[in-house]
Amino acid sequence: MLKLFEYNWQVRKDWFDWCESVSEKELLERRTGGPGGILYTLFHIVEVEYSWISGLQGKPEPQEPPFEDYADVQKLRDYSARCHEEIAPFIYGWNSSMETRFLSDQNAKGERFDFKYGEIMRHVIAHEIHHIGQMSVWSREIGKQPITANLIRRGLFDI
Amino acid sequence: MLKLFEYNWQVRKDWFDWCESVSEKELLERRTGGPGGILYTLFHIVEVEYSWISGLQGKPEPQEPPFEDYADVQKLRDYSARCHEEIAPFIYGWNSSMETRFLSDQNAKGERFDFKYGEIMRHVIAHEIHHIGQMSVWSREIGKQPITANLIRRGLFDI
Repeated sequence: MLKLFEYNWQVRKDWFDWCESVSEKELLERRTGGPGGILYTLFHIVEVEYSWISGLQGKPEPQEPPFEDYADVQKLRDYSARCHEEIAPFIYGWNSSMETRFLSDQNAKGERFDFKYGEIMRHVIAHEIHHIGQMSVWSREIGKQPITANLIRRGLFDI
Repeated sequence: MLKLFEYNWQVRKDWFDWCESVSEKELLERRTGGPGGILYTLFHIVEVEYSWISGLQGKPEPQEPPFEDYADVQKLRDYSARCHEEIAPFIYGWNSSMETRFLSDQNAKGERFDFKYGEIMRHVIAHEIHHIGQMSVWSREIGKQPITANLIRRGLFDI
């Protein structure tokens, strides 16, 4: 499980670097599909991971900050780093005995759902990879090579 | 690990169903980003999973069939099912002692690489999710709702 989170964090960092070479206009433009534009998608990825993992850590649901506060590569990078610092200990402390713990969640209609911790962990992993796939299409649309999605050859398994 | 494969297989099936309501022209059209059009991307997903897992099973690398043989939803569905039948026993038989086994692979330039089995397994998982993310953008481009990428609420953790 940890390796897939580490993959996502590495890929996210690569995309932040990629953003440095793209104009603000392109980064903020509303695009077809996905949750919005390029920078908003990265914000959404950070926010969703932070929110779910905070829940697994037993913390109250964090208030989603307005995107406008982070509509800038450096600010978003810093926000991602702050969220990461809070959730990383939980991910590194994960073990299989936590798989079947339950998290109770409520949707917008007030309906309650119980999720196994293992289900949430994998949901968060797949969520980020899926949105990064969308980013790769938008990257080609603006004529730029996307960050490789390859998980192999990233040094994740060297130790 | 298994749950993420099961997620991919379920999502892939949903996309095959989705394809039934899309014209052949749209399914075959070359699109921006990703490996090609919608149907070709599904073919690529099947082929890459089959090829890597066959390698982990100790089988010789399968010959990649020409896409033209499967450029049709039903034919591709059947191809996916045939590949699945061959690789599923390996995925279901996976255990953590297999993580650090090595697979030796050769690239187009003839250079050899050693990969841990665990690295390949996660690479295959991320590969499919990433390409499905691209499909979701193309789906919106042709005015159709994409298959949900949510891993939660798919019944994957009910047992």
